Amino acid sequence: MSQITAARVYDARFDLPKGVGSDAVHTDPQYGYAVTVLQTQDGLRGTGIAYTLGGGTNLICEAIKLFAPEVLGRPIEELMSEFGAVQKRLADHHQLRWLGPHKGVTHAALASLTNACFDLWAKQRGVPLWRLLLDLPPEALVDLIDLSYLEDVLTRDEAIEILKNRLSSRGERSSVLQEGYPGYDTSAGWFQYSEDKLRENVERAMASGFTAVKLKVGSPNPDRDVRRAAMVRELAGPHLQIMLDANQAWSLPAAKTACAALASIHPYWIEEPTHPDDILGHQTLAQLIAPVKVAVGEAVANRVLWKNFLEAGAVGVVQADCTRLAGISEYLAVAILATKYPVQVIPHVGDMGQIHSHLVLFNHIALGHARLFLEYIPHLREYFVDPVVIENGKYRTPENPGCGTEISAHVLQRCAVWDVSPD
Amino acid sequence: MSQITAARVYDARFDLPKGVGSDAVHTDPQYGYAVTVLQTQDGLRGTGIAYTLGGGTNLICEAIKLFAPEVLGRPIEELMSEFGAVQKRLADHHQLRWLGPHKGVTHAALASLTNACFDLWAKQRGVPLWRLLLDLPPEALVDLIDLSYLEDVLTRDEAIEILKNRLSSRGERSSVLQEGYPGYDTSAGWFQYSEDKLRENVERAMASGFTAVKLKVGSPNPDRDVRRAAMVRELAGPHLQIMLDANQAWSLPAAKTACAALASIHPYWIEEPTHPDDILGHQTLAQLIAPVKVAVGEAVANRVLWKNFLEAGAVGVVQADCTRLAGISEYLAVAILATKYPVQVIPHVGDMGQIHSHLVLFNHIALGHARLFLEYIPHLREYFVDPVVIENGKYRTPENPGCGTEISAHVLQRCAVWDVSPD
Repeated sequence: MSQITAARVYDARFDLPKGVGSDAVHTDPQYGYAVTVLQTQDGLRGTGIAYTLGGGTNLICEAIKLFAPEVLGRPIEELMSEFGAVQKRLADHHQLRWLGPHKGVTHAALASLTNACFDLWAKQRGVPLWRLLLDLPPEALVDLIDLSYLEDVLTRDEAIEILKNRLSSRGERSSVLQEGYPGYDTSAGWFQYSEDKLRENVERAMASGFTAVKLKVGSPNPDRDVRRAAMVRELAGPHLQIMLDANQAWSLPAAKTACAALASIHPYWIEEPTHPDDILGHQTLAQLIAPVKVAVGEAVANRVLWKNFLEAGAVGVVQADCTRLAGISEYLAVAILATKYPVQVIPHVGDMGQIHSHLVLFNHIALGHARLFLEYIPHLREYFVDPVVIENGKYRTPENPGCGTEISAHVLQRCAVWDVSPD
Repeated sequence: MSQITAARVYDARFDLPKGVGSDAVHTDPQYGYAVTVLQTQDGLRGTGIAYTLGGGTNLICEAIKLFAPEVLGRPIEELMSEFGAVQKRLADHHQLRWLGPHKGVTHAALASLTNACFDLWAKQRGVPLWRLLLDLPPEALVDLIDLSYLEDVLTRDEAIEILKNRLSSRGERSSVLQEGYPGYDTSAGWFQYSEDKLRENVERAMASGFTAVKLKVGSPNPDRDVRRAAMVRELAGPHLQIMLDANQAWSLPAAKTACAALASIHPYWIEEPTHPDDILGHQTLAQLIAPVKVAVGEAVANRVLWKNFLEAGAVGVVQADCTRLAGISEYLAVAILATKYPVQVIPHVGDMGQIHSHLVLFNHIALGHARLFLEYIPHLREYFVDPVVIENGKYRTPENPGCGTEISAHVLQRCAVWDVSPD
């Protein structure tokens, strides 16, 4: 039995070229990861990440040090056989729970640790994450998840049933493995890009085979947003999908005005129109801009908030992110729950698509979520050992064992690092 | 001008006697504070606290170190003249914001820093916090608050109007200063207390002049809850108010069953019946158990979630806590907003009542919130320089300058401590 004998935590931050990653709220981001590396006595390594915008990544690292002793000394297969219970034990730790519950720095730490466990497990089994998840019996898959506080909308039995009901039709959806999962280009339209640069990027995205691009909006000057959105629509013609993303910049009254004005360019969605905790505000906006969809998720902290968004009809596109939620486990909870509502699931890629390019395959094949497009942001490609590959606008299906999260040794060498000691 | 020249951060944790502080979810708490101490060049010290259950207090301390440089070098009067803008700048820091937004460890850090600024300011002016707040012109009071994301329910003008409208009737409510603000005894009914101990405590609480006591519920065995609650009701007679507190132990279906059973003892409220992010769940329960009230707040992270609770009619008793929200500023936002809804405001006292005994005076006199009762938990009295005094079940009005948050030097000496360096 391959036993986890060591855990290390790294504070990894990456400078970005000027303007890259900029939006209406985050003017000068770095990208960052709080990285957990678990090691077994036979030399396997599992890497987990939680995404940040640079500053404060060390806070998540400190929190991982408090959680990680739970997995030390445990054989990976045995650990994963009851991982939902492990998640609950950590998230509901009788003292640390107060610091959330289930949100913020401590929840991100649980994401990093959880994702490391999944990466190690997939490597142990010698398969990519998507294959691992597809091959699990429905009961075993559901036992990876802490379903507490969802009992009113999703019981364990019902989650198993959802998976079982879709088993026989998996074949119809498996062609995605050969064809690749479509991507969309987020990096075309960063907030600070000039209109010339924006035009050039949209044209390049189309030439590269993308059928959808994202434009950052949320300007204090609404005319700028409308002008740029109209320009992209004119360049793109009627068939390219355009996503608009305000990154929470608007108050609810401002969002109403801006969304109404921006609807004229027929966007596919308007993303994060206001504060991500404002469920009723999103409900109002969803009703206002239909059939344009409201997208939200990169800052929705946990499954309980997702339950509220779904029950309230406050979201059209569920952008759940396994580096914001408590890792792959809680992502699966949200993806299964979402099958019960008239929504689409299109993850935000805090992981640059490394993990989510696996998860959308599972979403589509096992859960029957529509095959749409997954965000593509290439800025950290060179730092991963096994970066995602996009060909003709589509993610190539990952074939190597694990979750794609291993970070190059030369990157980790320059990071602040901590060894986790047993309790 | 008294300028802030130094900031220190302390990780203060306090062991509790066996059973004290226990509830259905937090089985073995310590109490803890992430403490910010600001110092001026003329020797004034302001102390701010954010409450924890011990574990992970260091995470909040690390976050305070990232925020505190903002106030170094600034004269306290000048800083407080634009404190709402300072709050927004820190909470919306272009990189750190990602770690919330406005929740969890980073938000608690902002609470600690904010509360230190208020304590320093009140000391500089030589008045207790309640007097400082009552004496501010409405405009100056509102400018202490970051009202962003509340625009649809509370504008700056409206907040000022709410204060102005109640100015002329303040005299009618000021007798509370002489009479003292009523307390209620939370320490009577900790979860792990035996029925004998519980009986003894309730009798002592009544003999001490308390007219309300709290009992912890949320047992996996609902019969235990009902038995203990019925016992307290029998001891107390029909006139004593009994609050029941489940500390988030129940799923929504379990909460429905338990609340229906517990309603038979006519509690004043049922507190934290399920997960604090489950706004629609609380809405369902509020409708189910009316006229018994749903109380929630010690884990409601920010003003945006409060807006949702209030708009949804999901709360009857707003237990906002200035050591969970971003300090006294965001507490004031919620207290002002709550005047627009049919609710009561009875803070949770993460601060053991040190700050909230000031804030309820402001609530009642300036905002017209009903004079009810404030939680009383005595377990950390000895660690404060100027602990609250309860006489005949009532808080004595604090008279010393500041917020009551100064912690004894002998306590701070044994804490982990960090000096904050300028940016």
